[in-house]
Amino acid sequence: MRNIKLVLEYDGSTFFGFQKQPRRPTIQEALEKALSGFFDRKMKISAASGRTDAGVHAKGQVVNFRTASSHKLWQIQKGLNALLPSSVAVKDIEEVPSGFHARYSVWSKIYEYQIWNHSCRSPLMVGRAFHVPHPLDLGNMRKAAKAFVGRHDFRSFTSVSAIKKGSSCVRTVKSFQIKRRGDLITLRVEADGFLYHMIRNMTGTILEVGRGRRKPQDIKAILKAKNRCFAGVTAPAEGLTLYSVSY
Amino acid sequence: MRNIKLVLEYDGSTFFGFQKQPRRPTIQEALEKALSGFFDRKMKISAASGRTDAGVHAKGQVVNFRTASSHKLWQIQKGLNALLPSSVAVKDIEEVPSGFHARYSVWSKIYEYQIWNHSCRSPLMVGRAFHVPHPLDLGNMRKAAKAFVGRHDFRSFTSVSAIKKGSSCVRTVKSFQIKRRGDLITLRVEADGFLYHMIRNMTGTILEVGRGRRKPQDIKAILKAKNRCFAGVTAPAEGLTLYSVSY
Repeated sequence: MRNIKLVLEYDGSTFFGFQKQPRRPTIQEALEKALSGFFDRKMKISAASGRTDAGVHAKGQVVNFRTASSHKLWQIQKGLNALLPSSVAVKDIEEVPSGFHARYSVWSKIYEYQIWNHSCRSPLMVGRAFHVPHPLDLGNMRKAAKAFVGRHDFRSFTSVSAIKKGSSCVRTVKSFQIKRRGDLITLRVEADGFLYHMIRNMTGTILEVGRGRRKPQDIKAILKAKNRCFAGVTAPAEGLTLYSVSY
Repeated sequence: MRNIKLVLEYDGSTFFGFQKQPRRPTIQEALEKALSGFFDRKMKISAASGRTDAGVHAKGQVVNFRTASSHKLWQIQKGLNALLPSSVAVKDIEEVPSGFHARYSVWSKIYEYQIWNHSCRSPLMVGRAFHVPHPLDLGNMRKAAKAFVGRHDFRSFTSVSAIKKGSSCVRTVKSFQIKRRGDLITLRVEADGFLYHMIRNMTGTILEVGRGRRKPQDIKAILKAKNRCFAGVTAPAEGLTLYSVSY
């Protein structure tokens, strides 16, 4: 069996997230339908780098699947792109060693979070950026972001209900950058892995720092508390994009 | 009566263009409905800087309307933004002299046309950029764009049916720039006015130059011909945005 890796771009606005669920459109369902159509047999993916929530986009989601077919890679890519809805595309395709697993083999992931920071909402940013009408202190937000960098227990930044008993909440954030281009602020965070809602909870907390409701140095204490109640609100899904996955 | 100028941003994807027409959603209809709601009486705009086609977006469309009300400008803006759908917003509001007319007073307009130039289509660019999968020669495209700059008769670049008898097709293109940022190519053109489909026809012709099907020096001859048949195809609406209007 050949092991095929796909890099996907998708607009998450119209999907109920990546993972398949009954009676709701998901990216996994759209992809497996296209795979089944192309190979003319029921197909499932072996794994994805991770799930994305409803409304979250991707520029570089990675999945892998197995097939015994001898189709050329460009044929598979072209065929899938013809069968997929316009909101999903296979950007890249590659044959990988049989040991490759889209989730277990992840080395690091990069997410971007977009904030539209202007007193007026932006129709062209709807579903793509979170609208924050208040002035934000970027200097303090950068200090807060920096406090996340390193190896920490991120229990304070995930949903209590999502923590599996006995599982570790320790992750390593490799970098956390914040850039402004006009009225658009982009947070870019790289880590070896993310807990459920971790980026949206970090972003929500950083935004509270940006508005002066918390201090950058509070982050350290929130991490130490290992308690979700200490962190800020969850920023909405629409600003978030899975940017890339490294193996 | 006060004369009020509004600067609008909108996502044209879900509208049948700016101008009101029966039984179809248009930006004008959405705006007049919001104005009527806010002022609690039937309201119409006096003018818009120009119509935009179905699917065309705006970051800086300008309209004006008259009212005897004494509402503060920020109240009107806030009220309209609360009443408008998420796809339309009032970005700016200003009281202008009674002689101001959103169309007749125009000094120049800037439009941008976005091209997604990658072998694979981009789900996150759907409705925002025209997908051109073939390699494009930007140097030649820039030469072609430069040939449009100046005062010319643009009869070859508009729809024959849209030319009013006896009306002039002479316009002055002040600048025409082409930039590439990654896989996204942006054409930015400024003129004292544009004929119907003029930008989309210029863009379609420039793209034929970019693919090597025409030469940059052909533009001069096409302009001279004053015949629509000599120019290239009309590029689709989705890549086009009315960027700003100067008075």
